[in-house]
Amino acid sequence: MKAIVISEYGDPSVLKYEEREIPEMGSNEVLIKVCAAGVNRPDVIQRIGKYPAPIGVVQDIPGLEVSGIIIDKGDNVTKWEIGQEVMALIPGGGYAEYATADQGSCLPIPKGFTIDNAAALPEVLFTVWHNIFQRAKLQKNENVLIYGGTGGIGAMATQLVSLFGAKAHTLVSSEAKADFSKSLGAHKTVNYKQESLLEALGSPSMDVILDSIGGDYFDINIDLLKPDGRLVYINAMEGGKAMVNIFKVMQKRLIITGSTLRAREYEFKSNLAQDILENAYPLIEDNRFKNMVNYKFPLKDAAEAHRLMDSRDFMGKIVLTV
Amino acid sequence: MKAIVISEYGDPSVLKYEEREIPEMGSNEVLIKVCAAGVNRPDVIQRIGKYPAPIGVVQDIPGLEVSGIIIDKGDNVTKWEIGQEVMALIPGGGYAEYATADQGSCLPIPKGFTIDNAAALPEVLFTVWHNIFQRAKLQKNENVLIYGGTGGIGAMATQLVSLFGAKAHTLVSSEAKADFSKSLGAHKTVNYKQESLLEALGSPSMDVILDSIGGDYFDINIDLLKPDGRLVYINAMEGGKAMVNIFKVMQKRLIITGSTLRAREYEFKSNLAQDILENAYPLIEDNRFKNMVNYKFPLKDAAEAHRLMDSRDFMGKIVLTV
Repeated sequence: MKAIVISEYGDPSVLKYEEREIPEMGSNEVLIKVCAAGVNRPDVIQRIGKYPAPIGVVQDIPGLEVSGIIIDKGDNVTKWEIGQEVMALIPGGGYAEYATADQGSCLPIPKGFTIDNAAALPEVLFTVWHNIFQRAKLQKNENVLIYGGTGGIGAMATQLVSLFGAKAHTLVSSEAKADFSKSLGAHKTVNYKQESLLEALGSPSMDVILDSIGGDYFDINIDLLKPDGRLVYINAMEGGKAMVNIFKVMQKRLIITGSTLRAREYEFKSNLAQDILENAYPLIEDNRFKNMVNYKFPLKDAAEAHRLMDSRDFMGKIVLTV
Repeated sequence: MKAIVISEYGDPSVLKYEEREIPEMGSNEVLIKVCAAGVNRPDVIQRIGKYPAPIGVVQDIPGLEVSGIIIDKGDNVTKWEIGQEVMALIPGGGYAEYATADQGSCLPIPKGFTIDNAAALPEVLFTVWHNIFQRAKLQKNENVLIYGGTGGIGAMATQLVSLFGAKAHTLVSSEAKADFSKSLGAHKTVNYKQESLLEALGSPSMDVILDSIGGDYFDINIDLLKPDGRLVYINAMEGGKAMVNIFKVMQKRLIITGSTLRAREYEFKSNLAQDILENAYPLIEDNRFKNMVNYKFPLKDAAEAHRLMDSRDFMGKIVLTV
């Protein structure tokens, strides 16, 4: 099969389009003929050598999500049949013509989505659903602040929060990104390059914050949160070290937490997928949910896709089509 | 009535035994003829001027818990009758011959307790139950680390954790305190003046940590916690500022939280009291639960009680008897 391989760590040009063996399938896995693969920030970090794949996972083919058709299945697979179309969260190896996936990490293509566009869903859907809805236990009418409001995570979070019946507040860096965020249902956008978050949002104002930036924003988050507020980290791009004021945490009874998705056991992902099917599918299958895939590249042009992601001059999701 | 009054902020000698009006009762309150009042660390902090009573609460009579007999009740009080013996969590005013309490903050004297010894229960029982069982959601067989293992909070936490079926690990500063902690059911004690916590307990080893110290112990806690561990702050006596490593929080999916009890609304305390009655009373009424009141002083000698607490050379609880 053809696959995109990280030939060495470095800029997008290290991604090579090469011939590889079709991956071997485990007894709980399905083999998917890939139609499209989503591109995510962790793929970029893996490309530069700072986010190795978990042990037991193909190390040099990036890609955390695919859509496609099941063409074979392991002996213990009971949830799926050959010929079914699925989208799947996978721990690596998505930038390829074939990929394997644990049966519990697959989901049906949601109504209203093309199979190409569905490839952009699993990583952000699993991440947002777990962190905002399971971990932070979002309630209707609550205020949510979403960092990186126009990337894949932000676009998914804004739509789910808004369709669920809570208020999404997003951070953006331009007028165009503000418009995009509002088109996805954002209640309010803040241009963090021009405005003080505390002044623009009010303090305290937020019930839930989904932060991927960290650094100096940590303490701002603590001040933004209302009593019983929840602060959830999924990344810390501006730095992982921050000063915490324990008394503020106690006085407002805050909850500070975070998670990573990739290394979690399959049982966790399977339970999460079931919760998503029951509770998130009604939201993403709502006809107000907007397609977030704004860029498609042929698989062989993965380097171009990574250049676009590196530029940060994009909105929504990028997929590679096979 | 006679009461202990904070005549000015300072050392224990500022506590004066004076004549005061019997407090006025609200429609949801009972008037209690006090038999005994518990002495707690927050009383000391209030005495030195660093922990003012909430608005609407008597400012200069300390005391967060009493036991006694109901001698009058407000029009809306349905839970209690005149003549009943109760223990009560109150927001202040406990060091006196009479005190008022919200009906929802009163509990019956548990079986096996004298009315004097029951006065030492409410503050630590409400605090420990909320933080370890409600907030940190302790499960059976989990490992719990308790800072200040031999004070009132620590003695209550050790007994509840152990009788619940989890393992209490406590920090102590002497052989005598280690023996006391073990007598209360501690699975393991660590002398923090002599041993490294990480070496003595192993890393990672703890599911839940109840910390009242803060400061440099924050980062040690993060390392001690197992994946999905919970760190709960009820004070930060060594300092409220600490450096947090966001990536460690994400990788282990930790939950960092905390709370204060005194300023919470009565509805919260009433719901907490109900949960305690249903789920904590079976533990404290277990005949293995040990009396924690090791010191009794007449009300007029409150200054002596505070000197003992200031010395830190005590174990368990101190009560003032009326």
